Amino acid sequence: MTPTNAANIASDLPVAPGTYRAGSSPVGLHRVLEPGGVLPQAAWRLDASPELYADEVRVRVDRLNLDAASFRQLWDRHGGDGDAVRAEVAGIIASRGKMHNPVTGSGGMLTGTVEEVGPQSRLGLAVGDRIATLVSLTLTPLAVADGLREWDGRSEQVPCDGHAILFGRSIAAHLPEDLPADLALAVMDVCGAPALTHRVVARYVAQGRPPVVAVIGGAGKSGSLALASARRAGAARTIGVVPVPAERDTLVEAKLADAVALADARDPVALSRAVEAAGGPADVTIVCVDVPGCEHGAILATADLGTVVFFSMATSFPSAALGAEGLAADVQLLIGNGYAAGHADFALDVLRGSPGARALFESRLAAHTHPQR
Amino acid sequence: MTPTNAANIASDLPVAPGTYRAGSSPVGLHRVLEPGGVLPQAAWRLDASPELYADEVRVRVDRLNLDAASFRQLWDRHGGDGDAVRAEVAGIIASRGKMHNPVTGSGGMLTGTVEEVGPQSRLGLAVGDRIATLVSLTLTPLAVADGLREWDGRSEQVPCDGHAILFGRSIAAHLPEDLPADLALAVMDVCGAPALTHRVVARYVAQGRPPVVAVIGGAGKSGSLALASARRAGAARTIGVVPVPAERDTLVEAKLADAVALADARDPVALSRAVEAAGGPADVTIVCVDVPGCEHGAILATADLGTVVFFSMATSFPSAALGAEGLAADVQLLIGNGYAAGHADFALDVLRGSPGARALFESRLAAHTHPQR
Repeated sequence: MTPTNAANIASDLPVAPGTYRAGSSPVGLHRVLEPGGVLPQAAWRLDASPELYADEVRVRVDRLNLDAASFRQLWDRHGGDGDAVRAEVAGIIASRGKMHNPVTGSGGMLTGTVEEVGPQSRLGLAVGDRIATLVSLTLTPLAVADGLREWDGRSEQVPCDGHAILFGRSIAAHLPEDLPADLALAVMDVCGAPALTHRVVARYVAQGRPPVVAVIGGAGKSGSLALASARRAGAARTIGVVPVPAERDTLVEAKLADAVALADARDPVALSRAVEAAGGPADVTIVCVDVPGCEHGAILATADLGTVVFFSMATSFPSAALGAEGLAADVQLLIGNGYAAGHADFALDVLRGSPGARALFESRLAAHTHPQR
Repeated sequence: MTPTNAANIASDLPVAPGTYRAGSSPVGLHRVLEPGGVLPQAAWRLDASPELYADEVRVRVDRLNLDAASFRQLWDRHGGDGDAVRAEVAGIIASRGKMHNPVTGSGGMLTGTVEEVGPQSRLGLAVGDRIATLVSLTLTPLAVADGLREWDGRSEQVPCDGHAILFGRSIAAHLPEDLPADLALAVMDVCGAPALTHRVVARYVAQGRPPVVAVIGGAGKSGSLALASARRAGAARTIGVVPVPAERDTLVEAKLADAVALADARDPVALSRAVEAAGGPADVTIVCVDVPGCEHGAILATADLGTVVFFSMATSFPSAALGAEGLAADVQLLIGNGYAAGHADFALDVLRGSPGARALFESRLAAHTHPQR
């Protein structure tokens, strides 16, 4: 029997309370409805039925935090019509059993309260725990009960009543008690960036050559934490690059970077010149802007034997690979992995230690009723 | 005056022999016709006119070597109709001024003879040199004079009469005298893979933990050189993964890997189980198959704190980034940069030292009238 068949049959049968469905896969293969045999992230549609398999956890969802690239695409597509954005998000969740934007391929994360824990779960969660999921919404079974009616469709943060399923192998973090939930959530959403930035910078430092670090999109969420993290890891110099004067002023005031440069990241020549003028070229360049076409500029701004880390989901793989080749650039190109052991706690700690980053996050949260660059 | 305007005007004017156009950019900005201000690889159309700028080199082209993903797409689209494939390639070159497949975003490389060298070129080339270009065709100005009439449209290797332009900062390698040109060309086409594989494996070895290396697509061009290179760098164990029994037999006979596993790389569960059974999980996984959907399998087959290197142009950036996150996989994800200093000479040296890899290349060259997996 294939996983697909098993899931279909199981969800058609009533399950008595206290009994659990058997035969689950720790990575969620048993929840994949179509196409069969792929992992949940690659699936078109997931089974989001609330009955648990023995190693699963069900979460009562109170908030979704949409990926920035996904929200931007929806916002742009509907010309800023919040009702249309809400209707499309509700429709995606209903048809796919997950919040997986089919255009951008990205999702987001959620918060909620643990509602039921299967007897074989090893995630360390208990009923009533307040948590955030740190795996993408693109692979998390999700069902909405309230039609998202509390959401105006004008912000990445979506109030929501519904349920989500965590698999045997998943990642969920307890929401910290010393930080507001929306702040913690916003930090956790991008917690892969400070963790990987720290690792990469520390590797150069350990080799006796503290690097010049440029963060493209330094005033954004992942960007500001990457800057704070680079400094903490021992960078020789940090350069924040932003596209508009308002963000430059904000970033200068936050004191997160040794230098702040103004450039359009989609213009390779302008970007590389701006980084150069700010003390570059960079040994490590971190790309944190969710707009397409930044690959070549990042590569051109990076010194020989340097490293570029792409956190933007708008990154084009061929453009990065062929761009480096075309520029005869001997640089290491890293895909920003959203997961590293301990990344959530690390990111929260970076925020606690950086008043500038915290101020940026708080002002973004206060102002997030309109999409930002 | 913008580069676009300059290029347009210049190509409309007759240029006297011995005089050169001025105002060029080392990375080729001056050859971009549309859209303006982007690098040549990102451009829709390049100026391929034969008159040189002072730092350029013109090559008389005798052969194109299409990127495998590009040729496969064309072949599949036209259902194996060689005439239609030829017509489309000729049409792409005529309309774009470069061989840049708009669907796959990939190109290939070329060989030819240096025809003219601008007085300010620093590539070290002389008129009459036999060379291969090691930058992608996606950014190389190219014009075809013979309509590709010598090509049957059924192979990646395209006999061709035409000319190409090398910029001030470019990469060209002299064709070695001890190897047939088609063999050297096929090796240089994938020379980024053995170079980067060697670097990554050597880094683990230097840390005192020689890695288990799995190469997905181990019987292919880049795959076989990656296997040979991993062994040369000191891998603890090499595993070649292939999709069909015929390739398994070929790879076993070539003695390039300590173990050969059979699996469909698009099936994450099957792939990870096959690698596991062959002595995995892998500390380093190299993805060399040009089919979409291999990201999750590669990640699932890789051990914690391992590294995955994606050389396939069919790699999806979001699928890799979100897949690792969704699988809670703390692995380093590398975009396979096609360039590293000395990569061509290194790859040729790996081939010379590996009778198995050489035999694979030679048999592929002999049989390449049909696209292979």
